[in-house]
Amino acid sequence: MSSSISPLAPEFVPQLQPVPGVTLTTTAAGIRYQGRTDVLVMSFVPGTTVAGVTTRSLCPSAPVEWCRDALKKGKARALVVNSGNANAFTGKNGRAAVKLTAEIAAVKLGCKPGEVFLASTGVIGEPLDATKFEPALTDAAERLVDYPWMDAARAIMTTDTFPKLATAEVLLDDVPVRINGIAKGAGMIAPDMATMLSFVFTDAPIAADVLQKLLSKGVKDTFNAVTVDGDTSTSDTLLLFATGVAEERGAPRIKDVDDPRLKAFRRALFDLLADLAEQVARDGEGARKLLRVHVNGAVSKKSARRIAMSIANSPLVKTAVAGEDANWGRVVMAVGKAGEPADRDLLSISFGDIRVAHEGARDPDYDEAVVSQYMKNLVIDLTVDIGLGRGSDRVLTCDLTKEYITINGDYRS
Amino acid sequence: MSSSISPLAPEFVPQLQPVPGVTLTTTAAGIRYQGRTDVLVMSFVPGTTVAGVTTRSLCPSAPVEWCRDALKKGKARALVVNSGNANAFTGKNGRAAVKLTAEIAAVKLGCKPGEVFLASTGVIGEPLDATKFEPALTDAAERLVDYPWMDAARAIMTTDTFPKLATAEVLLDDVPVRINGIAKGAGMIAPDMATMLSFVFTDAPIAADVLQKLLSKGVKDTFNAVTVDGDTSTSDTLLLFATGVAEERGAPRIKDVDDPRLKAFRRALFDLLADLAEQVARDGEGARKLLRVHVNGAVSKKSARRIAMSIANSPLVKTAVAGEDANWGRVVMAVGKAGEPADRDLLSISFGDIRVAHEGARDPDYDEAVVSQYMKNLVIDLTVDIGLGRGSDRVLTCDLTKEYITINGDYRS
Repeated sequence: MSSSISPLAPEFVPQLQPVPGVTLTTTAAGIRYQGRTDVLVMSFVPGTTVAGVTTRSLCPSAPVEWCRDALKKGKARALVVNSGNANAFTGKNGRAAVKLTAEIAAVKLGCKPGEVFLASTGVIGEPLDATKFEPALTDAAERLVDYPWMDAARAIMTTDTFPKLATAEVLLDDVPVRINGIAKGAGMIAPDMATMLSFVFTDAPIAADVLQKLLSKGVKDTFNAVTVDGDTSTSDTLLLFATGVAEERGAPRIKDVDDPRLKAFRRALFDLLADLAEQVARDGEGARKLLRVHVNGAVSKKSARRIAMSIANSPLVKTAVAGEDANWGRVVMAVGKAGEPADRDLLSISFGDIRVAHEGARDPDYDEAVVSQYMKNLVIDLTVDIGLGRGSDRVLTCDLTKEYITINGDYRS
Repeated sequence: MSSSISPLAPEFVPQLQPVPGVTLTTTAAGIRYQGRTDVLVMSFVPGTTVAGVTTRSLCPSAPVEWCRDALKKGKARALVVNSGNANAFTGKNGRAAVKLTAEIAAVKLGCKPGEVFLASTGVIGEPLDATKFEPALTDAAERLVDYPWMDAARAIMTTDTFPKLATAEVLLDDVPVRINGIAKGAGMIAPDMATMLSFVFTDAPIAADVLQKLLSKGVKDTFNAVTVDGDTSTSDTLLLFATGVAEERGAPRIKDVDDPRLKAFRRALFDLLADLAEQVARDGEGARKLLRVHVNGAVSKKSARRIAMSIANSPLVKTAVAGEDANWGRVVMAVGKAGEPADRDLLSISFGDIRVAHEGARDPDYDEAVVSQYMKNLVIDLTVDIGLGRGSDRVLTCDLTKEYITINGDYRS
C-alpha cells in the first residue's frame, strides 16, 4: 500500500450491505507484508454459481490455471485471495501451492477443493509458502461474518492507494437483489482482460452459463477498456458469484441470458463493472490525472478501440498529460502508429470542449491559454474524430508520472 | 539539447573524413532554438543516387510525404534538414512550406526542387515558417565545404545529448570508398522504421534500386530493432545517398544487388547502420542503461522479434532495469502478453551470464547478491530462451527513468 491516497480517489466510499449467502473475513498470514491483512477468505452457501474471466497472458499464474479448471463446473463454495505474492512463474511448486491451499480451504470450510476459487497478487517469481494458509484459514473459518466488505477490499491491495468497492440494489422480477464488487489494480494493468483482481457477488439466482455470458459481455467496455501501462498481468482474474439466496424471497431462477427479467440486473452489473474499472484507472500507479480517451468516426468500434488504446498506452501522450500540456501532435503520432485506417487531413482533436486541431492542422481559433487552463483539471477528456466512419469507443487511463517510476523501480527491493 | 550527456554515450567520437561529391554546412535559422544551429544543408554532385526508408505511421509529416515522392526518381542533389519544428500535422500550410523550402534550395543550389530531400524534426503541430529558409539557404550556399560532419550531426539534434556519427572505409572491387552516417534520436523512437532522422552518404557508384534494396534489408536488424518508448514518429526518415564519385578512381558502377563486389560494402553499411541505431538507443530520453534483449528458441525470427519488442517496450521491465532490479517476473509478464507461442514452463531467463529462471521457476542456484551486482552495469544483456524452436532475435532499448518523464512533461512549454 502506498503512503498517500491518489488525488483521483472517489470522494465517497460506498457502504456495502451484506449479500445473502456470502460470509467473509480477512486475516494476516504474513506472506510478504507485515502489520496488515493479506488474506481474504469468503464462504458461499451450497448452490452458488460462478463465472469468470482471466488474463489472456500466455504465461498465466498457477491460481489462474486453477480457476480456469474450476470454472468448468460453474460451482463455488469458497474464495481465498492473498496479496503480496502472485504465485506466478513458480513452476511445479506453484501448482502444488495452489492445490494445497484449496485442500486446506476445503477442509476448513466443508466443501470440495474444486469448489474453492483462488487468486494471488503481488510479486511474480517468488515461491509461495502455502503452509501459511493452514493456521490462517483455521482462524478465518471461525470468524466468518457477512459485513466486513471494506476489510475485504483492503486485504487484496498491493500498490493500490485506496480500496475499491461498488454496490447496487436492483429488482429481479420485482424482488430486490444485491450486487457487491471489490477490485484491486494499480500497475501491470492492460486489457485482455484488465484489472489484476476483481470479485463480484450477488444473491440473484442465475445459472452459471448465464452468468458467464453476462460477464464476458460486461468486461468488454469496462475492465477491458482500461489501461494503466499497457502491461498485462499474468494473474488477471475477475470472478462473479451468485448465491441464489434471493430465490427464497421469490426471485426467479434465471436460466437464459435473454430472459427479459434480467434487463435491470444486466444494466446494474455493467454499471458496477464500469465503476470498479474506473476506480482501477483512477488508482493507476503514480496517477495524478484520469484520462478518458474518446475516439469517434473510426471505420468500426474495433478500430476505434485500437486507436484509443494506442493513444492511452503512448508514454509521450501520458507524460504530456502529466505535464498539463495539450500536446495534440503526440495524439496524431499515436493515431498514426495504431495501424488503423486514418487520414491525417481529416483528424479533429479536442481536449474537453476545446477543439485544438481540425482537418489535419491546428484549429484556427486555438488559444493556448484556454486549453492550458483546461489541462489543470484532474479528469481530462481527450476526443479524437477520425472522420472516416461511425465507429466509436472510449478507453480510460491515467497520466504517466515520476511516481510510477519510483513505485516500479523499487517495488521488489 | 539536454544539459548533460548520457552516461551511455560512446567513449570516442569518430572523426569523419570527407565523402567525395558531398559538401555541407550548417546555419542558424532561429526556427525554434536560439543560440544554436538548426539547419543542415548538404549538396551532392550530379549523378548522385538515393534510397530511403520512412515512417510507417499513417499520419506522416509533410517532409516525409515529399521524400517519398522524390525517392521515386532516385536522384538527389541536395538535403535540407531543420530541427525545432517537425512540420507534421500542419495541413496545407505544411505541404506549402515543404514545397517552398525545396524551391528555395533548388534556386540556391542549382538543381530541380524534386532533387531536394527534406527532413524536419521537433515539435509536431506547429506551423513552420519556410520563409526563414530564404536567408538561411542564401548564406549556406556560399559556405559549402566538405568537412564539418560533427557540425552536421549537431544541427539536427533535439533532445539528443550527444551527436551521432559513424564512418567506414571499405573496398569496392579494390577501390576504397567511404560511408559516413549521422543520426538523431532520443524520444518517439520505435520501429517501422526507427530513428527519427538518419542520413548516410557514400561515394560508391551504386544504382538507386540497389541502394534501396540494401537499405531496406539493412534497417531490419538495426534501426527497426531499436525502441525507446514504443512511440513511432510521424517523421522517421533514413536516407542513403551515393555520389558515385569513386567511379573516377576506378570503382565499378553497381547495378545488381547480388553483385559479389558489393559484399564488403554491404557488411560495412549494415555495421554502420547498427552503430548509429545503437547510439540512438544509448541516447534514449532519460536513459541511464542500455538494455539488449535477446530472445532465443522462439518458433521463428518474427516471433522472437515480437517477444523481444514486448519486453523492450514494457514500462515495468524498463523501470525495473532503471531500479537495478533483475525482476524476471516482469519479463515473464512481457513474454505472456506478446501473444506469441510460449510455454511458461519451458522459459529460461538470464541477466548477463547469470541464469535467474529456468523451466518456469526461479533457478535453484539463484543468488540475489550476484545478479544485483550485475544489474549495476551500464549495459544489461537480458536473454530469454523460449524453448520451443530456433527463432532468435535481438532488440535494443534503454531503461525508463524519471528523467524521461521530466523531458516529456516539459518539452513543449
